[in-house]
Amino acid sequence: MDSFTFHNPTRLDFGTGKERLIGQHLAEHGVRSVLLCFGSERIKRDGLFDTVRQSLEERGIGFVEFGGIVSNPVISKVREGVALARAHGVDAVLAVGGGSVLDSAKAIAAGVRHDGDVWDLFIGRAPVASALPIFAILTLAATGSEMNPGAVVTNEATKEKFAIQSPHTFPTVSIVNPALMQTVTRDYLAYSAADIIAHSIEGYFTATVQPAFSSRLVEAIVNTVIETTETLMEHPADLDARAQFAWASTQALNGLTYAGTSGFGYPNHMIEHALSALFNVPHGAGLSVVMPAWMKWYHGRNPAQFTRFAREVFGRDTPEQGIAALEAWFERIGTPTRLSQLGITAADLPALLDNLEGNARWFGLAETYSREVLETILKKAL
Amino acid sequence: MDSFTFHNPTRLDFGTGKERLIGQHLAEHGVRSVLLCFGSERIKRDGLFDTVRQSLEERGIGFVEFGGIVSNPVISKVREGVALARAHGVDAVLAVGGGSVLDSAKAIAAGVRHDGDVWDLFIGRAPVASALPIFAILTLAATGSEMNPGAVVTNEATKEKFAIQSPHTFPTVSIVNPALMQTVTRDYLAYSAADIIAHSIEGYFTATVQPAFSSRLVEAIVNTVIETTETLMEHPADLDARAQFAWASTQALNGLTYAGTSGFGYPNHMIEHALSALFNVPHGAGLSVVMPAWMKWYHGRNPAQFTRFAREVFGRDTPEQGIAALEAWFERIGTPTRLSQLGITAADLPALLDNLEGNARWFGLAETYSREVLETILKKAL
Repeated sequence: MDSFTFHNPTRLDFGTGKERLIGQHLAEHGVRSVLLCFGSERIKRDGLFDTVRQSLEERGIGFVEFGGIVSNPVISKVREGVALARAHGVDAVLAVGGGSVLDSAKAIAAGVRHDGDVWDLFIGRAPVASALPIFAILTLAATGSEMNPGAVVTNEATKEKFAIQSPHTFPTVSIVNPALMQTVTRDYLAYSAADIIAHSIEGYFTATVQPAFSSRLVEAIVNTVIETTETLMEHPADLDARAQFAWASTQALNGLTYAGTSGFGYPNHMIEHALSALFNVPHGAGLSVVMPAWMKWYHGRNPAQFTRFAREVFGRDTPEQGIAALEAWFERIGTPTRLSQLGITAADLPALLDNLEGNARWFGLAETYSREVLETILKKAL
Repeated sequence: MDSFTFHNPTRLDFGTGKERLIGQHLAEHGVRSVLLCFGSERIKRDGLFDTVRQSLEERGIGFVEFGGIVSNPVISKVREGVALARAHGVDAVLAVGGGSVLDSAKAIAAGVRHDGDVWDLFIGRAPVASALPIFAILTLAATGSEMNPGAVVTNEATKEKFAIQSPHTFPTVSIVNPALMQTVTRDYLAYSAADIIAHSIEGYFTATVQPAFSSRLVEAIVNTVIETTETLMEHPADLDARAQFAWASTQALNGLTYAGTSGFGYPNHMIEHALSALFNVPHGAGLSVVMPAWMKWYHGRNPAQFTRFAREVFGRDTPEQGIAALEAWFERIGTPTRLSQLGITAADLPALLDNLEGNARWFGLAETYSREVLETILKKAL
């Protein structure tokens, strides 16, 4: 087990109706006005927007609407948000949505405090030295962004999908109401499950130091995601399953499972970022394609851990059986396992591999993941 | 799964040599002087005191020595610490030791800010409205106090062992260096294992709402404690086992495993507090006596969870087999399972039962745990 520092200052307020407390949380932190970030207009139709507005108004908190944030959020939209936040001099950002909205809000919060283009922060040209306070109401559990400092954004001009991460970009308060997630489509539930599993297994398989305790925590998360996804596919209104799914999702990427581990990378995310940057595929759908292919290429490097995974998650005996079981499970829940299902063919490989060169450098994995290796992996996913 | 708020602001700095950073942590928080709380003079002989002193001096941080804190810490000593902290006007408390030192330091931190006797805070006569910042260097992993807001202290005049808990009594920074724990005796290692298991299973068995995810997290902790204790009994110098044991100990009582659960109590702690208040037995040793007896009495109320425990922890089939396996494991590692091993006999039961009446009220368990029920449980432990 390696040394680590664990500090996660986010307050998570979890449960039915908790979104009504957002005004109170903001007031307790002295916030007077927010940039209210959201995605589609759906939150206006389903009543969530009105609930939030009422809660803000009760506490005399002003807000500036900033809607239209899309999946695989883009830096041009973040720039727009930075300008709007500055123009109105808001005290904080409030994200109402899923991971894309949260990540955009975090990037805006950091961008407002950066004297230059916000993309500088993503390419290491400037550090995230400060950020507006970040508040969130989560409507889709998948990315873990509600309790971590990460924000992933795509530069649509350069086709780079990169991230920032800083002690300043932890949400101050995140509200997670599983009931708000009951309208998530079956497709997006499946993609979300794949995303959470990806967060869980990147370190689990690639860390050079991986304590058994950390592996057990990962298995607790993965087994919970599998169990609750299956329940929700049959009974979408099962609020308990929805809640456990969401809480496991938060734990998958809030630092818990990575504390004390070291030497790990995020190769599946590295590869997937090229898919979503170039083809705008849903992140989780990209991951469920990448993971089995990567595992088939990688498992010989860590056979003990793949054997463990097969046994503890699927009750199987060998690495190959465990990988096949995961792939079959992805197929069963309806998330793709082949590039062709995403409309990506062998003809697209050169463009993907070009994009992946930059990704591999950014992820610090260029040494292991040469163009040749990446081509081998991608071909397994065709 | 129930609603909850999760917020754990403690920064945990974990690893070999981290105690040398204490001056830096204090300086970053603007601390100029501390009450340095510790137990025996051992830390002066083994070099830890000098390391801490040097780290403080490097940052120009003054300190007032406050040694002599004993296991099952007492309120008279806390009062002494409050007076000393006030007399010197320290900015913060720094605990260097195990759970008893940490808990005393927390009580002092809260007591300094309370205009009245510090015991008021333990009996609900006054709330913990504020506290000095709390810093800690942990030398024994067991109580979880390094990452939670609880502090348990005995009033030796009234023989009450009660606790405080408040958002103000989370440590600001806790340093956990497993290497400092390599000199823990075999006895105390075994008692610590029992304590961690007790923290884990109180909610696991008694909660009326207990999500499967929470149960899996508990099992990850318990299985890690069992595995690493066995390793450490054979190889006390195994630093990796020492580290995993400590990290599991922290997670057992930092809020993680209880989030989303409800309706739970702490009956084993309630009973044990009478043992250590009256007979000053080591807390963990008291718990390893209480747990099997309590389980034998209780398991019929939650057979599914006891079956689960038997299977997931000991690979056995029935509640009774699981309980017997735990009891046998306690015996194997050398922590007592009978009151007689603690020098407590049937003649002591009336005094214990008298003491437990107050405990049962304080723990909110008086309805279930009548004198008759408690006698039944204690007799199983004779």
